[in-house]
Amino acid sequence: MSKKLRQIAIYGKGGIGKSTTTQNLTAGLVEQGKHVLVVGCDPKADSTRLLLGGLHQKTVLDTIRDNKTEIQLSDLEKVGFKGVRCVESGGPEPGVGCAGRGIITSISMLEQLGAYTEDLDYVFYDVLGDVVCGGFAMPIREGKAKEIYIVASGEMMALYAANNICKGIAKYAERGEVRLGGIICNSRNVDNELDLLRAFTKELNTQLIQYVPRNNIVQQAEIRKKTVIDFEPNCNQANVYRELAKNIDENELFTIPTPMTQDRLEQILIDYGMMEKDYSI
Amino acid sequence: MSKKLRQIAIYGKGGIGKSTTTQNLTAGLVEQGKHVLVVGCDPKADSTRLLLGGLHQKTVLDTIRDNKTEIQLSDLEKVGFKGVRCVESGGPEPGVGCAGRGIITSISMLEQLGAYTEDLDYVFYDVLGDVVCGGFAMPIREGKAKEIYIVASGEMMALYAANNICKGIAKYAERGEVRLGGIICNSRNVDNELDLLRAFTKELNTQLIQYVPRNNIVQQAEIRKKTVIDFEPNCNQANVYRELAKNIDENELFTIPTPMTQDRLEQILIDYGMMEKDYSI
Repeated sequence: MSKKLRQIAIYGKGGIGKSTTTQNLTAGLVEQGKHVLVVGCDPKADSTRLLLGGLHQKTVLDTIRDNKTEIQLSDLEKVGFKGVRCVESGGPEPGVGCAGRGIITSISMLEQLGAYTEDLDYVFYDVLGDVVCGGFAMPIREGKAKEIYIVASGEMMALYAANNICKGIAKYAERGEVRLGGIICNSRNVDNELDLLRAFTKELNTQLIQYVPRNNIVQQAEIRKKTVIDFEPNCNQANVYRELAKNIDENELFTIPTPMTQDRLEQILIDYGMMEKDYSI
Repeated sequence: MSKKLRQIAIYGKGGIGKSTTTQNLTAGLVEQGKHVLVVGCDPKADSTRLLLGGLHQKTVLDTIRDNKTEIQLSDLEKVGFKGVRCVESGGPEPGVGCAGRGIITSISMLEQLGAYTEDLDYVFYDVLGDVVCGGFAMPIREGKAKEIYIVASGEMMALYAANNICKGIAKYAERGEVRLGGIICNSRNVDNELDLLRAFTKELNTQLIQYVPRNNIVQQAEIRKKTVIDFEPNCNQANVYRELAKNIDENELFTIPTPMTQDRLEQILIDYGMMEKDYSI
């Protein structure tokens, strides 16, 4: 395996825009000549749709379940926008089994079949929801992803989830190599959002690696099954994602996060005017 | 346990508004004189915040972990808006253990301590995310919740998740008593959303039990840690939630859902103009 390979996991609250952000960022990286593999780790298998111009047809777990002959890498991996390689791990049957174990089965299968080639610069794991259980922490627990980014916004529950995810990262960081690379703000147009996120990330002992403004062009591109970079390459939003890609590519700040108490998180929200002073959550 | 007790689980895509909808609906029920227990099953423990005027201070799992003396029901249960009883199951340490098993530990503890009293009309379980793994299906797997509602919108991934959740429900329904009571549309102002949801629910062999329009009053109430019914009892949106409460209270249509194939879901989206005709996801 190439020494320079960076394996990155993206976490964040459900519905915050992890998949959209990951794919737009990935489009920025492949446009800049990087070799990238994206492994969707959400059982909904929608982590590569914008890169492939439509949903991945068959997940790794589906392929394993239906397998009649020997599985080839080409059965699992599809090539999308500017050569980005796309895999969807898929999930167990709905309501049965552990989705996290499905992720690790998929990663093992990809390793066996030689998906982690020498030329790769990046592998991205787009993981469902918060790190609420051991299952969804699999890519970091198993030492695959050593670099984490969290997508958040200025909304309380997004910050709450980000702080919680940092508790998980800190736990694994103590005994391993996993580190936090930063927080990506996917703006919800909350007042004072940028200042709030700066204060939040500072407290967490990390950085705000990119502020992504809210822009309808993202939804317009999504309807066409494209990233913004693919759909409208000259717009401002495309440049924001290119900047995010560059910031991650050049990032040298990797830390063990210092998650805060609920009281301290509240205090920051009060300081930035997100809550009334008498707020007790 | 009272014969009339209805135990209801609420599912839906992450970020779709499950907790907000559940709490507003619950406020409607208690206002109509019903006795209700809400068990938050999201490790973020934010399922009862609007009913309690702030976050529940200590979850069941926290209490079990920190327990020095015998646990009392009053340690776990707080009383909120118009007498609604609120519990948060909490979660395992972030990134470790199975969140689903935490839910079932909490429910067992509540049963032991006599939380399921004779006077109760309803227990609501507000469950994290899609039914992606066995863990989060716990309330139905264990035969606690026999009645399910799914929160969805006209957005493709919300419908995709709802259809997937129905696969889980259908699986358990075959061998048990669990049934789907309907879909709640938490509108995202998608074009043709109402017609689309009607077609979708019909295909699923269920009903659209309520269409909840998008309204900023919901966010305004949330900032004040209140349900809309509590914050602005005379507004239209409050009446919508009262209608939802009434529709659920009077509901007699409980079915085994018939989840559709991906192709069929796409066809419905095409028929209602949500996608281009050449769409292949």
